Amino acid sequence: MTDNFIDRLCEAVRKGSVLTGKDIDSRYYHDLAGRPVAQPRAVVRPRTTEDVSALLRCCHREKVPVTTQGGMTGLVRGALPNPDEIVLSMELMNAVEEVDTSSGAAVAQAGTPLQKIQERVEQEGYMFPLDLGARGSCTIGGNISTNAGGNRVVRYGMTRDLILGLEVVTADGMVLQGLRKYIKNNTGIDLKQLFIGSEGILGVVTRAALRILPAPKERQVALCALPSFALVISILGMARKLLGAELTAFEVMWNEYYRLVLERVNGVVRPLSVDYPFYVLIEASGDDADRIHADLDKLLDTAMRANMILDATLSTSNASAEAIWRIRDCSLELARTFPYAARIALDVSIAIDRMDQYVKTIVARTKEIDPGAFTIVFGHAGDGNLHIELHHEHTPDRRHELERLAYQITGEFGGSISAEHGIGIVKRPYLKISRTSEEIEAMRTLKRALDPNNILNPGRIFTM
Amino acid sequence: MTDNFIDRLCEAVRKGSVLTGKDIDSRYYHDLAGRPVAQPRAVVRPRTTEDVSALLRCCHREKVPVTTQGGMTGLVRGALPNPDEIVLSMELMNAVEEVDTSSGAAVAQAGTPLQKIQERVEQEGYMFPLDLGARGSCTIGGNISTNAGGNRVVRYGMTRDLILGLEVVTADGMVLQGLRKYIKNNTGIDLKQLFIGSEGILGVVTRAALRILPAPKERQVALCALPSFALVISILGMARKLLGAELTAFEVMWNEYYRLVLERVNGVVRPLSVDYPFYVLIEASGDDADRIHADLDKLLDTAMRANMILDATLSTSNASAEAIWRIRDCSLELARTFPYAARIALDVSIAIDRMDQYVKTIVARTKEIDPGAFTIVFGHAGDGNLHIELHHEHTPDRRHELERLAYQITGEFGGSISAEHGIGIVKRPYLKISRTSEEIEAMRTLKRALDPNNILNPGRIFTM
Repeated sequence: MTDNFIDRLCEAVRKGSVLTGKDIDSRYYHDLAGRPVAQPRAVVRPRTTEDVSALLRCCHREKVPVTTQGGMTGLVRGALPNPDEIVLSMELMNAVEEVDTSSGAAVAQAGTPLQKIQERVEQEGYMFPLDLGARGSCTIGGNISTNAGGNRVVRYGMTRDLILGLEVVTADGMVLQGLRKYIKNNTGIDLKQLFIGSEGILGVVTRAALRILPAPKERQVALCALPSFALVISILGMARKLLGAELTAFEVMWNEYYRLVLERVNGVVRPLSVDYPFYVLIEASGDDADRIHADLDKLLDTAMRANMILDATLSTSNASAEAIWRIRDCSLELARTFPYAARIALDVSIAIDRMDQYVKTIVARTKEIDPGAFTIVFGHAGDGNLHIELHHEHTPDRRHELERLAYQITGEFGGSISAEHGIGIVKRPYLKISRTSEEIEAMRTLKRALDPNNILNPGRIFTM
Repeated sequence: MTDNFIDRLCEAVRKGSVLTGKDIDSRYYHDLAGRPVAQPRAVVRPRTTEDVSALLRCCHREKVPVTTQGGMTGLVRGALPNPDEIVLSMELMNAVEEVDTSSGAAVAQAGTPLQKIQERVEQEGYMFPLDLGARGSCTIGGNISTNAGGNRVVRYGMTRDLILGLEVVTADGMVLQGLRKYIKNNTGIDLKQLFIGSEGILGVVTRAALRILPAPKERQVALCALPSFALVISILGMARKLLGAELTAFEVMWNEYYRLVLERVNGVVRPLSVDYPFYVLIEASGDDADRIHADLDKLLDTAMRANMILDATLSTSNASAEAIWRIRDCSLELARTFPYAARIALDVSIAIDRMDQYVKTIVARTKEIDPGAFTIVFGHAGDGNLHIELHHEHTPDRRHELERLAYQITGEFGGSISAEHGIGIVKRPYLKISRTSEEIEAMRTLKRALDPNNILNPGRIFTM
């Protein structure tokens, strides 16, 4: 294929950064299940912010669409290229440039894997609190563009709460240099907020100043079995009260999740029997190991005396804490033991006092359509966020019917159709369940203002 | 004055809501020092979101500028009307509509005073953590438009971190209904972020869903005297370590501030001698009174043994805690004992390890210009935020020279010219010290997109 645009692109960015034809590895255009989409026109792998700027200037001028890629762990097909798009892979911009403990900030390039940042910061006795199962592959740029949540939101907030400053390249190649380390900076419109969670449609994040905190010396984890969801809510209230800010995670697993993890995923220990209706993982952190242990112990003891929990175990070492976390962390491994095409992954926010009824409604109404359907439910109960794997008979028609039904029920329960995964392509048809038409119109207004040629991740979230 | 526009305005909103001529009370166009600006063309006091929408539709169509007013406690002249503007006062929309403890959310109209929200939420055993000296007069709408900080940012973040959802009316009268209570809601561009901290230039906030938390049962306060700023930094590190998330405030006062408060403000007790170089207020909160007391006690004891502090006192009751807080909270009362026109109020973010040298530089270089100049320094050290009252000989020329110099020094130290007060009119000439020209251009792009007729608080932050 002769492609003059590619020649001009190669002139704009350094030639070696542009891959075309057979040089394009399949990972740039295959989904999580290994299925390909159309091969992109080219893959550009910038090494500097100036490269990103040159690339976007070129694409803006010639109205060529660009898909930005991080670690490709997203769950809404947001980073898979459409036909004829250029892929902008941030994988070569993967350095932690600075760890500044006196300001409580680390600076990393957007393509840096989350775990690399966590480990670098830990060397200084600090922590970057964002944590999620995909930590080894996902990049901080992807975390920012999706406003990732994860395991510690109950204490440290979402990615948005951990960003001090961003360097962003806009659609026309302009560099917004906002890489500042202040906690407080009320100097006009806080532009960085626009680029956090907007899935790359308004600009390309190239570097970030991240908030870091002194790492707590001690983390301990309890796993409890409960007879009802009402008691899950009660023990959450009790944990907030007794542990206060020591509470760093509160995760819930329905029976099916716990049981199937133990049946189907390798290398998982079984701290409690698989017969209980609900399991709750509670993490407490702090510097004083004795205090953390005593506080968790008191929580379990109080709950046990009040007949709230049926059984419980408390970690006695880092290894046993990790073994408990592994149960909750291997959700994707569990999902992969089922056929990809026969599962629908929901990620919803629901008021906690309606969660139980919501799940029961999803189960009952999906079974009406597909008697073989079943659900695996788990999530971040402390944040009002559930993940539901809805498994069904493998027929495409049935899939869409079930998906539509599930989101419709989410709307009926006043929930959000995306707590943390984003909209991408997969949830675009359902966006109007969670946002008003005026809000979606305001989003379009912003998109037109910042990306008038609609070149950045076009068609993600909404169509123009 | 015959004013057909006002007739049309009265038709659009309910007639009784529009004040003109002599019916306009002086408070709508007088600054904090009681000095008037031009009387506005009309003052509109909507009772509903629909009123706000009707007003803005009318003003948008006829290109009439509008200044939105909350509690008029802002410090950057952002809410004082320009000549011929309509004042939109939110004072009649002042209801706390809902306190939902199970979702951890309260819903309030934008004109509700902060303290009214705090007190309503406290009735349920909850807290709305935002707190600042102006709590009795400032409104939540004003807090949102300036992304207010205040006393507890070190633990609970700024206003932005406490907003779950907003209802906003855009310049053309469109209502963005985003009054949601989820902690996690990644469904496209997070529009509310645009309206937080943008000083009313992009839309008018009418209602807010606020994050509320179970109120800690116990608050205790220590006041320490320190010999050097280096030890202020040391004790901050020690407080973070020993108190962990119990640390809810860490405030610093230079000697002049403490001494002058005790000399000039009524009703302030003197817990420590006025002879020490630095004073630090440390607040710890939690449910367990004994633990909080023991932890603060241990902190003071450890610091005392290490010769870090010269003297200290610990609150023994709510009353004594309030008495200590009063010293820090009366900064505005202290300022008002000096001639208004002879003081420059700085509100800066500075890296904590450069704060001491920054203040010394401000002092030395302002004295070069004006030997009678002196500074009163205090602030939220835990957030990297200082307030500096720079007092000078009362001549307008000198004032501008000193102000320019102070912001120039702030830039030289890599600081932000506004940590929490905002830009308004007062700091507009200095915005470029803290934001790049590309960033300011991007702000203009957003303003043009969302308010094409430039009717909302025109001229605040930047000119078009």
